Amino acid sequence: MNYRLVFRLIGRLLLMEAALMLPSLLVSVLHGGGDTMAFVYAILITCVCGALPAFLLKPKQTDLNPRDGMVVAGISWAVFSFFGCLPFVLSGAIPHFADAYFETVSGFTTTGATILTNIEALPKGILFWRSFTHWIGGMGVLVFTLAVLPKLSGRSSHLARAESPGPTFTKLLPRMGDTAKILYGLYIVLSVVMFLCLLGAGMNVYDALIHTFGTAGTGGFSNYNASVAAFNSPLIEWIIALFMMLFGVNFAVYFHLIRRELGQIGKNEELWVYLAVVLAATLAITIAILPQYGNFFTALRYGFFQTASIISTTGFATADFNLWPVFAQSVLVLMTFTGACAGSTGGGFKISRLVLLTKSGFRDFKHTLQPRKVAVVRIEGKAVQEGTLSTLGVYMFLYVLCLIVGTLWVAAEAPDFTTAFTTSLTCLNNVGPGLGAVGPVNNFSFYSPATKWFLSLQMLAGRLEIYPILALLAPSVWKKN
Amino acid sequence: MNYRLVFRLIGRLLLMEAALMLPSLLVSVLHGGGDTMAFVYAILITCVCGALPAFLLKPKQTDLNPRDGMVVAGISWAVFSFFGCLPFVLSGAIPHFADAYFETVSGFTTTGATILTNIEALPKGILFWRSFTHWIGGMGVLVFTLAVLPKLSGRSSHLARAESPGPTFTKLLPRMGDTAKILYGLYIVLSVVMFLCLLGAGMNVYDALIHTFGTAGTGGFSNYNASVAAFNSPLIEWIIALFMMLFGVNFAVYFHLIRRELGQIGKNEELWVYLAVVLAATLAITIAILPQYGNFFTALRYGFFQTASIISTTGFATADFNLWPVFAQSVLVLMTFTGACAGSTGGGFKISRLVLLTKSGFRDFKHTLQPRKVAVVRIEGKAVQEGTLSTLGVYMFLYVLCLIVGTLWVAAEAPDFTTAFTTSLTCLNNVGPGLGAVGPVNNFSFYSPATKWFLSLQMLAGRLEIYPILALLAPSVWKKN
Repeated sequence: MNYRLVFRLIGRLLLMEAALMLPSLLVSVLHGGGDTMAFVYAILITCVCGALPAFLLKPKQTDLNPRDGMVVAGISWAVFSFFGCLPFVLSGAIPHFADAYFETVSGFTTTGATILTNIEALPKGILFWRSFTHWIGGMGVLVFTLAVLPKLSGRSSHLARAESPGPTFTKLLPRMGDTAKILYGLYIVLSVVMFLCLLGAGMNVYDALIHTFGTAGTGGFSNYNASVAAFNSPLIEWIIALFMMLFGVNFAVYFHLIRRELGQIGKNEELWVYLAVVLAATLAITIAILPQYGNFFTALRYGFFQTASIISTTGFATADFNLWPVFAQSVLVLMTFTGACAGSTGGGFKISRLVLLTKSGFRDFKHTLQPRKVAVVRIEGKAVQEGTLSTLGVYMFLYVLCLIVGTLWVAAEAPDFTTAFTTSLTCLNNVGPGLGAVGPVNNFSFYSPATKWFLSLQMLAGRLEIYPILALLAPSVWKKN
Repeated sequence: MNYRLVFRLIGRLLLMEAALMLPSLLVSVLHGGGDTMAFVYAILITCVCGALPAFLLKPKQTDLNPRDGMVVAGISWAVFSFFGCLPFVLSGAIPHFADAYFETVSGFTTTGATILTNIEALPKGILFWRSFTHWIGGMGVLVFTLAVLPKLSGRSSHLARAESPGPTFTKLLPRMGDTAKILYGLYIVLSVVMFLCLLGAGMNVYDALIHTFGTAGTGGFSNYNASVAAFNSPLIEWIIALFMMLFGVNFAVYFHLIRRELGQIGKNEELWVYLAVVLAATLAITIAILPQYGNFFTALRYGFFQTASIISTTGFATADFNLWPVFAQSVLVLMTFTGACAGSTGGGFKISRLVLLTKSGFRDFKHTLQPRKVAVVRIEGKAVQEGTLSTLGVYMFLYVLCLIVGTLWVAAEAPDFTTAFTTSLTCLNNVGPGLGAVGPVNNFSFYSPATKWFLSLQMLAGRLEIYPILALLAPSVWKKN
């Protein structure tokens, strides 16, 4: 590993993180919840720890090789979360370090699983920072920084490779930095539009910001114990549900939309499958919960909200779906697994992977029937290489392996199998709530510190699509080069 | 499809099935439970329906193409089960057809899931037939018939390809028919040894036969409501546990053992992984349930029995593991998924597939770190083709898809998510018991007839490794050629 370069990169990231804490400091000063000094100390500590490697280390080589790119992705999310939890610890809002780290990782990975039992008791600055981590995490700390530090590394696309969710990261523009800036711009514009919609629907500025952060990052932290249900407003629920769905779409779609390249959007198979799944799941859940709510439109509202919330891996709740019929719960569990589109802020296994695997399945099946015919798997009109397909199958296996290891680990403490399984699933897919004891009205506080550390690792593995976290465990990576 | 050939093949299979019903007829005559005439009628009907196509149809071409081979596998298991359930229906032991078909498919696929609420109330002839279906199914109706009808088709290995469990069906001898005879011989010898052991441990002849059938086929039907726990004999439990484990081993290992080719056994990675998993799971479960039983050796006995029972996909029970700690339950669910070795009578995803996927995972991971290095995945010292690896990944996906579709279907009727998920999992893997409402002391009787048909299909899909059942749904297969 090129230690100097990696440390310098991470140093710069920390300086940026310190800057990102400033808005929260401002909020805490304005609201005066006794958390101001915690932010001041956190910013100072992060600044100093970032400035030292950022300015003192002069790497001989400034090219990042693919292995180091992967390691940077892994380490930087872990380190980012470490410094990100300082405000929680220093303010005493979350006194235990394992809890604070879990909450911060849950924020940056846009999972939204919480260990807090009474969210509303915390100071406003702390809750602002908690939700702001979603917004930062949303587009990925590194895609984010690619727009700001594009010249640091000549081969920065290696970073994006480890970072970009899903197998089909469309290069919109030849230069990585330009692509990142466009994605980032779209992200801000969509966020602002949503913020204005929420204001229009009667939210105050603070609540609207918090829920915009949670939605844009597909995270799901709310500042109310009852999540979005606290507003008791169908209009707000529809707005948030719609934007959760929109933030689960590949951002390339919006780029093409602006350029009026409608043909490109028509060809985007993932988008249509995603919308079809949302439609089918909404209808299935609506019908399943209809007897419980009596009114079709009420059921539809709850059904669509929870569908959009789970498939986009946000995790906001308007109802306790632990009380819904088992069929509706199973549909939600299924969407916890599928996740959103590649190139969106959502997590999960990704629709595009499922589309490719389904096509490969049909191809292999046809091949078994007619061994002499050679067929190629295509997506968006382009042939997919066999290597990509085998990598995809292997990724699915690694993913299932993480899920199983997680279930076994958690099972030692969970009250039932459903809780153990959905805890592992919801953390790996960065969704947030599960079923049973980790349902939408429950929280993760009852797990032991060791399990909270483990689940933090699992959230990171899910967000970075496993390999960068595996890389941290490979001894060869840590050799100096 | 070459209809004449396919019908003739299935006709011959039915004649064989009629012959296989004769021992049950004999048992029913000896014990006089009022089920004798049911067997007489069932045998006559099966005979006539088999004789007509077997003797009247003269196919112009006697070569079986791969597609037809796959279809024969699919149809013949479905048809075999159809005629196999006649004794249950005609005797009135299982009056509803959906129930009887479910029970018979569960028998032939060696699943062992039952819809019976009071097994001990049934006549002995019926219970004998019920368990005998396990023994027939064990080595596969078609591998079985390959030893008897080797000259029917010039390319009978297509049949074996659809039939053989797992990706590495070792051709022991150049001619398919010879291989089948050897496997069949080993199967009988192992069964006889087990039968004698059970007699020696104090079982009566009837019980010993029933439990040998259930173990050899890795099925799990017992003639007691309490399953193997009814004997209340640690010795019997150890014997059955040991043989369950042995029947989960690739039969090629025994072949090499006889030939004293110990080097071949040493190279069999799947065997060692299988034994390691059994050891690890037994220890993990033993420690988890120790507080419940107090005594280490009692806990070890229960732990080893249930480990061997689930990993071999047999499904016998000596304890209600629904009452065990969630961790022990999760280990059992994990083994429900892994299944036994390829080339054994066990079902499930198969250890060899997991070994290959794990190796591919490591390879792909290393490749991401060092893109210039080209590495080959090897098993038993031989390089595995890339095509095999991508097919494996796709198979895993199809498998997960079946599991998800099954969970969603069952969720409409299951009392909780754990029940829905483990019902789908245990049927697809041909294990038998699940958790929750389908636990070892429960049964599948509460499901609707539609769900019983669906689960029958899922058991068949699991046993035939999905493709032959998919083939039945492909319109092109049904075109005459």
